[in-house]
Amino acid sequence: MQLLHTVADLRAALKGESETAFVPTMGNLHTGHIALVQQARRQGRPVVASLFVNPLQFGAGEDFERYPRTLVADCAQLEPAGCDLVFAPDVREMYPEPQTFTVIPPLADELCGAHRPGHFAGVATVVLKLFNMVQPRYAVFGKKDYQQLFLLKGLVRQFNLPITVLEGETVRAEDGLALSSRNGFLSPEERAEAPRLYRLLKQICARLGAGETDFAALEAVAAQELAHHGWEVDYVSIRSRRTLLAPAAGERDWVALAAARLGRTRLIDNLEAGAASVCE
Amino acid sequence: MQLLHTVADLRAALKGESETAFVPTMGNLHTGHIALVQQARRQGRPVVASLFVNPLQFGAGEDFERYPRTLVADCAQLEPAGCDLVFAPDVREMYPEPQTFTVIPPLADELCGAHRPGHFAGVATVVLKLFNMVQPRYAVFGKKDYQQLFLLKGLVRQFNLPITVLEGETVRAEDGLALSSRNGFLSPEERAEAPRLYRLLKQICARLGAGETDFAALEAVAAQELAHHGWEVDYVSIRSRRTLLAPAAGERDWVALAAARLGRTRLIDNLEAGAASVCE
Repeated sequence: MQLLHTVADLRAALKGESETAFVPTMGNLHTGHIALVQQARRQGRPVVASLFVNPLQFGAGEDFERYPRTLVADCAQLEPAGCDLVFAPDVREMYPEPQTFTVIPPLADELCGAHRPGHFAGVATVVLKLFNMVQPRYAVFGKKDYQQLFLLKGLVRQFNLPITVLEGETVRAEDGLALSSRNGFLSPEERAEAPRLYRLLKQICARLGAGETDFAALEAVAAQELAHHGWEVDYVSIRSRRTLLAPAAGERDWVALAAARLGRTRLIDNLEAGAASVCE
Repeated sequence: MQLLHTVADLRAALKGESETAFVPTMGNLHTGHIALVQQARRQGRPVVASLFVNPLQFGAGEDFERYPRTLVADCAQLEPAGCDLVFAPDVREMYPEPQTFTVIPPLADELCGAHRPGHFAGVATVVLKLFNMVQPRYAVFGKKDYQQLFLLKGLVRQFNLPITVLEGETVRAEDGLALSSRNGFLSPEERAEAPRLYRLLKQICARLGAGETDFAALEAVAAQELAHHGWEVDYVSIRSRRTLLAPAAGERDWVALAAARLGRTRLIDNLEAGAASVCE
């Protein structure tokens, strides 16, 4: 497995490759990321993973500074998973000049975007840059970051990138908590409380499956339950999987999404519901 | 020479090419465009030209509807110039869904951007799409659209596109008028008046070369002269070639840019001045 830090070295290593499978990450990898790498390996070669904590997608007061940088441990996980090349640029390599060109995605003020101004513009901009550096045939993103995945599929489509986006299923701990690099910030008490987020999404999903149609009530009950147990809720929202907006009348391809803070740590999760979903 | 209308056909025709030289145009070609195609041919093969009048870069009340569509005449000029492939998509092929992802460039509210809200976002967005469709090694843009060229060089750099941007010199009629598709809109009287724009830029350039440092006065004199002869002036502005902002103290790499309307027709032109410029 190669470890490269510059765009020039990366381009030289990938010259002539046409079936590259790419997994962009911010590092501090867990089993969820490794599953994405394994999924990439089933699609194309070489498998490239990037490790870059992107300052552009962190807002003021967010956890950019404390976000863990764990290069050696990340590489130790990537190699046995079948990764061929790790690209780990520093901020200066990614942004040698101030990034004055930005990609503005749709829905940038919805859901997580409403609580993280500029976040999705930062994500779209860095991913477009990484795509142009790696020029992959396939790119894999996890469904845990549902809005991000939705946006990046749109980015590829609307900017006509010759890339197939693959969706990785969310990997969960035994108690249901979605794996996340930020779980490491949780105290033991917070970690014990954290799976409630998923349990409430499952409840919403079950109620929708049983024919409940009052979305606002379902959202409010879940948000109140979280608040009651000490969470600071950003949103609990039932959306259309097709548009990520409020479901249209008759639409049954739903996704329930939630974001809430336990102490200083912001957790997100989601669950598809309705038609063609397994609801668990 | 191939004429293709769909992205799928274009990708199939260019599969495996790594030295493509690309000239994006809005069609209604003149000698200036043909010089860009010839320049492209000196750089790489195949040579691809696109013909697409991009609705995204026209504002309300601008000339999108009356902008000439002259496919047959354009192809008749492109083939003898050494063009190998013409890509002429329709609006539905370029925008099969509403374009909700946009590229916001810097300086979008400066110079022409101040008078054409959204114009440069539209340009940056369509050019990024075309780049991803054609995946050229080289792209050629004329210096007549100086701000556009400046922005597109930044787009390539900041989004890490593996493309070399080549600058085409402005081609002029014998009386100095920069060739433009919009010159065809001019009445005989307007056509006779039109070269004044270039003459005034040359005067500015000569005064700068002679040591004049009062930029505002030079700009004002030229703008008054235009207005006196019936032009509606958008701007006459002396800028830094490096930043396209007001020149810093001591900076001598200038460019004088102007945009003004004769009747219904908006003309633009520019001339580099100061260090390393020929001033004519």
